[in-house]
Amino acid sequence: MAGSIFGSLFRVSTFGESHGPAIGCVIDGCPAGISLVQDDIQFELDRRRPGQSSVTTPRKESDTVEILSGVFEDKTTGAPIALLIRNADQRSKDYSNIKDVFRPGHADMTFQKKYGIRDYRGGGRSSGRETACRVAAGAIAKKVLASKGISFIAHTSQVGNLKASDVDLSEIENNPVRCADPQVAPKMVELIEALAAEGDSIGGAVSLLIKGLPIGLGDPVFDKFDAVLSHALMSIGTIKGIEFGEGFDAVTMKGSDHNDKFISTNDGVSTETNHAGGILGGITNGQDVVCRLAIKPPSSISKSQDTVTKDGAETEISVTGRHDPCICPRVVPVVEAMAAIVVLDRLLIQKTIQI
Amino acid sequence: MAGSIFGSLFRVSTFGESHGPAIGCVIDGCPAGISLVQDDIQFELDRRRPGQSSVTTPRKESDTVEILSGVFEDKTTGAPIALLIRNADQRSKDYSNIKDVFRPGHADMTFQKKYGIRDYRGGGRSSGRETACRVAAGAIAKKVLASKGISFIAHTSQVGNLKASDVDLSEIENNPVRCADPQVAPKMVELIEALAAEGDSIGGAVSLLIKGLPIGLGDPVFDKFDAVLSHALMSIGTIKGIEFGEGFDAVTMKGSDHNDKFISTNDGVSTETNHAGGILGGITNGQDVVCRLAIKPPSSISKSQDTVTKDGAETEISVTGRHDPCICPRVVPVVEAMAAIVVLDRLLIQKTIQI
Amino acid sequence: MAGSIFGSLFRVSTFGESHGPAIGCVIDGCPAGISLVQDDIQFELDRRRPGQSSVTTPRKESDTVEILSGVFEDKTTGAPIALLIRNADQRSKDYSNIKDVFRPGHADMTFQKKYGIRDYRGGGRSSGRETACRVAAGAIAKKVLASKGISFIAHTSQVGNLKASDVDLSEIENNPVRCADPQVAPKMVELIEALAAEGDSIGGAVSLLIKGLPIGLGDPVFDKFDAVLSHALMSIGTIKGIEFGEGFDAVTMKGSDHNDKFISTNDGVSTETNHAGGILGGITNGQDVVCRLAIKPPSSISKSQDTVTKDGAETEISVTGRHDPCICPRVVPVVEAMAAIVVLDRLLIQKTIQI
Amino acid sequence: MAGSIFGSLFRVSTFGESHGPAIGCVIDGCPAGISLVQDDIQFELDRRRPGQSSVTTPRKESDTVEILSGVFEDKTTGAPIALLIRNADQRSKDYSNIKDVFRPGHADMTFQKKYGIRDYRGGGRSSGRETACRVAAGAIAKKVLASKGISFIAHTSQVGNLKASDVDLSEIENNPVRCADPQVAPKMVELIEALAAEGDSIGGAVSLLIKGLPIGLGDPVFDKFDAVLSHALMSIGTIKGIEFGEGFDAVTMKGSDHNDKFISTNDGVSTETNHAGGILGGITNGQDVVCRLAIKPPSSISKSQDTVTKDGAETEISVTGRHDPCICPRVVPVVEAMAAIVVLDRLLIQKTIQI
Repeated sequence: MAGSIFGSLFRVSTFGESHGPAIGCVIDGCPAGISLVQDDIQFELDRRRPGQSSVTTPRKESDTVEILSGVFEDKTTGAPIALLIRNADQRSKDYSNIKDVFRPGHADMTFQKKYGIRDYRGGGRSSGRETACRVAAGAIAKKVLASKGISFIAHTSQVGNLKASDVDLSEIENNPVRCADPQVAPKMVELIEALAAEGDSIGGAVSLLIKGLPIGLGDPVFDKFDAVLSHALMSIGTIKGIEFGEGFDAVTMKGSDHNDKFISTNDGVSTETNHAGGILGGITNGQDVVCRLAIKPPSSISKSQDTVTKDGAETEISVTGRHDPCICPRVVPVVEAMAAIVVLDRLLIQKTIQI
Repeated sequence: MAGSIFGSLFRVSTFGESHGPAIGCVIDGCPAGISLVQDDIQFELDRRRPGQSSVTTPRKESDTVEILSGVFEDKTTGAPIALLIRNADQRSKDYSNIKDVFRPGHADMTFQKKYGIRDYRGGGRSSGRETACRVAAGAIAKKVLASKGISFIAHTSQVGNLKASDVDLSEIENNPVRCADPQVAPKMVELIEALAAEGDSIGGAVSLLIKGLPIGLGDPVFDKFDAVLSHALMSIGTIKGIEFGEGFDAVTMKGSDHNDKFISTNDGVSTETNHAGGILGGITNGQDVVCRLAIKPPSSISKSQDTVTKDGAETEISVTGRHDPCICPRVVPVVEAMAAIVVLDRLLIQKTIQI
Repeated sequence: MAGSIFGSLFRVSTFGESHGPAIGCVIDGCPAGISLVQDDIQFELDRRRPGQSSVTTPRKESDTVEILSGVFEDKTTGAPIALLIRNADQRSKDYSNIKDVFRPGHADMTFQKKYGIRDYRGGGRSSGRETACRVAAGAIAKKVLASKGISFIAHTSQVGNLKASDVDLSEIENNPVRCADPQVAPKMVELIEALAAEGDSIGGAVSLLIKGLPIGLGDPVFDKFDAVLSHALMSIGTIKGIEFGEGFDAVTMKGSDHNDKFISTNDGVSTETNHAGGILGGITNGQDVVCRLAIKPPSSISKSQDTVTKDGAETEISVTGRHDPCICPRVVPVVEAMAAIVVLDRLLIQKTIQI
Repeated sequence: MAGSIFGSLFRVSTFGESHGPAIGCVIDGCPAGISLVQDDIQFELDRRRPGQSSVTTPRKESDTVEILSGVFEDKTTGAPIALLIRNADQRSKDYSNIKDVFRPGHADMTFQKKYGIRDYRGGGRSSGRETACRVAAGAIAKKVLASKGISFIAHTSQVGNLKASDVDLSEIENNPVRCADPQVAPKMVELIEALAAEGDSIGGAVSLLIKGLPIGLGDPVFDKFDAVLSHALMSIGTIKGIEFGEGFDAVTMKGSDHNDKFISTNDGVSTETNHAGGILGGITNGQDVVCRLAIKPPSSISKSQDTVTKDGAETEISVTGRHDPCICPRVVPVVEAMAAIVVLDRLLIQKTIQI
């Protein structure tokens, strides 16, 4: 429907504009009896927070979260969990010049036409700032799933033409681009800084690994694990493509090469390879779920661009606010969060398949 | 939830197994007063039907659809439309040999573990046969949308390494692979036939174009047009990746190159280029929506493959039924159908945004 | 939305018109591995079937149900279960005279205005015939719940001014009105027959008892057990009121009289009385759920009534088809079915509250 | 599912406990471009607020609402509207004595068993305090609907045995019980005060009138207007019964008396009487929707009652907090609010029935 509620049983309802009083979310359907404190959520928000390094926007937001409900004596009660993040550094004057101008690559025009009205301050509801709420909700899902041995690891696997090749997952949080290849990471930083200096931006790729999944998550026909995960991840504004396992490389493969052979293991059945990316017939098969995401270059650039006003007059615009020249490092926690929300939701549904 | 219902307002509920008595669907929420006859649906089913050419499975199914409800004097009444397709050529004996063996690349293992039981005949619910119901429901959505000037064109843009380059959309239905490049189409046929002769299969790519969309469809935050369309298309079993506009090419692009400049036109605002694939901020911008899908090579191959039985014993399998060596041509109408269902659903929602 | 789908996890999607080719339903989300044969469903349909006795409509419908999917070797597989009932005795000529006339008390007028079109044959979608699909779906829910020790008993507790007083639940199926008081039942039959002879009809009350419920079903705030059950039961066309426990008698009660005292029992906590009708704070408390329903007199009467045509002209109408003079006995299985659907749905949800 | 989200297109997600930091709600799907200021919402909250008179609880809560999102320059933008109400007068020490004791008539026991944990402070999530969020959300729905000429009038029609008979709707807000009969209102006040003095409470009835509805709202089969309204109203904790039009009086009526004759009017078709309560076949027929609600006596009474502890030990309890001896006057705005939410939701759905 209106689009700000996600999930089937673990349902997240988000709200808030970039330059309004606050953003936040309400989670209905979080299981009861789970340990949860503010720090569990703040930790993940801090990973997404602006102003972390030279490669991210200098906007200052502490993104301090307040738990308003659903937690009693540090445990979830089964009641809705409301999370509130006040906007601090609003500076809405920065945006008054774009009140009547459509920024290229932004949702200004489409929001105006869709709703007949728009809160233009910082992009309003279309701002990437809404992803903080996804991260907050996802932190709770992660907490629940950690107790089941399920973990989420996303990282920047490419920036422009620079690809991570020698991947060491323990390196991800050691560099500002969140790249798992410590040799390539500094080159990525350099490239991003150079483009930022030009007033430009650059695309990239983020890879996601979900470990520890049981066999059986995901629901045929329409709610296949990959379908719902695609919904969740493609709803992150900056993502333009998604592929699982071999993904677009499967286009040129033969069936005899792509099929993963089943093998017998101590604790059951597994596959020798993982071309499928951990999913068979839309259901997790016990292998790691592996997917890769295309991240577009941020639309907000200070380079001058031709555009038009609300009334159709030609003009130029230089988007001078505080922006990210490459969004990959800040997308990483958002990707993990959305994946966690999907996994928890499907795990709960799976509890109802056999009774 | 259980996964066989799709849509928000135009809701499609499908059922049926490959070798049970019938497959079909019920559509709740089709607008009233739309002209609809059996032929509208049969036409699309015939495009997806098995046994059409040398590059598709020889399984014989007429896929004759019966309208059971919701249509009166050739008009929709607003009541649920139930569609029934009896299974004709069931030959379930073909499948008795796979009762206890997991076919590589198939959902046999994951269904068994998820449900604790499975209808193994022809893959049961996991069979691609369920897509006939998507096509039937999509035919109705297409009919409604045609009256609004909205159309859907999918085609096979790649098979293995063979890419369509000189695209002429009017050529699509003139060759058995549904390729829009008449020079490349015969080579694709040749490649597929050669692989079929080897008992193997091949992957490909299908491209989708949606024309005539109004500005404003798609709902931030979670139900962005591309997110919901990704959900719908990635739920087609054979699809392993999706990208919009520049898609994965955006990874190496700069913001100044990727942003589409707004221009003024006679009837409003448009963009000079369409790198975004017709969507800004998750909302259609009036340009064609353009996306591309990675299609995996079919898992059913007669080449012998190593695998295990339900009980974990090693064995070999040769999947000898009647199968498609490349599924692209038959995926084309399914892709169009799912896209039509999404577009109609979002069009209905858009009617409630301003009152 | 469009209204023909009910349930959260156990979702029933119904279709069909009174005089179209067929009616039926699809159930998505039935747990896998449950024993189920056609007889389980047919048994309940036979209880609702027309033509059972002198107090029901003489319309001849065998209401033979066919299971089209979701069951393999007499067990549910977790896939959607589609049920089909062909309409046999359609006689649509009976209804040609009401094509342009609005029958008082019927949905002819409101359907015409809502949809701009209506299938007037026998009321089309608004016919009580749709309740057969509820009964069929409910039969499956009952089967699942029986294995959990949960049972549903509805009975006619009043017809006109005749009230059942000396209730013996084992008597319900021994008389054609399904009254639990064997002294009052024959008087009810006599009253109904007398009114039928006059070409008139009469209202009544149906009481429902749900036994064997665990503590904990129902979800605050909006999906309280009584709220969802009210939704389900009030959606049966003929029901005009519902009350739980003391119901409308609570209007005149004091808190000290209405509160049920908690007592300690061998297996936990119980209450001394059951004024609340088995529900506290919207959650089942382990007592029987008790509710009572107001059933209106059927609108279809052969007595002549003043009305207007579609175009507003005054006219008279005598509804001469084959109708029920009192619908209570045939509502009984429908009430049980809807209750079973709600209970199973909430039972499944409850499995996700603590993990 | 978890129960704190209500609605199909106009979706309300509520949160908050009686003695936590705050309560509130998020509304997704409010149409864009509607004038809305804080006062529109505060006005309705003030009608529900505790501490208004001698017949309501003396708990002091200003219930000041803050709009956090979705409104820009005093107009709705189509983005989610978040509303926040901080809890002021929490006094959680009042409740420490009931930590381990189940109050009769309350949800203490059922919450404990359902969730395995409960926030016992003031009833936590089960407190009637959550209804403030319904009123806040409903105020927005009312604002939208007022512009369509639709209005909602609820009033206390009975307290104990005292019934309003000479109804004048303009009198409702002139007395503390919100009774439309100015002769009976003072007697009701007297009765309530007498029972409060005894440490007891009393039940009552609230009647609801919805005026100005167009023909066509409500969706067969399961989402009939009365079914969805019953869901909404029966989810208010204190309500034990609902009836439409003649309601339980229809039990003793004949069809020839109950059917409302259609008549021709200047602007179309109407009915001579309104026994049906404004609904035919689950669809509004243009008459006022009329329903009546059974309100139970509040469970919180200071009279000593026998009960048990969490561990099953027998004990006595006197619920000494600050409570309402009759909840009718404060239920009135809650009833109106829930009805407004349902009506707006169905009005939006109706916009999608014909395109």
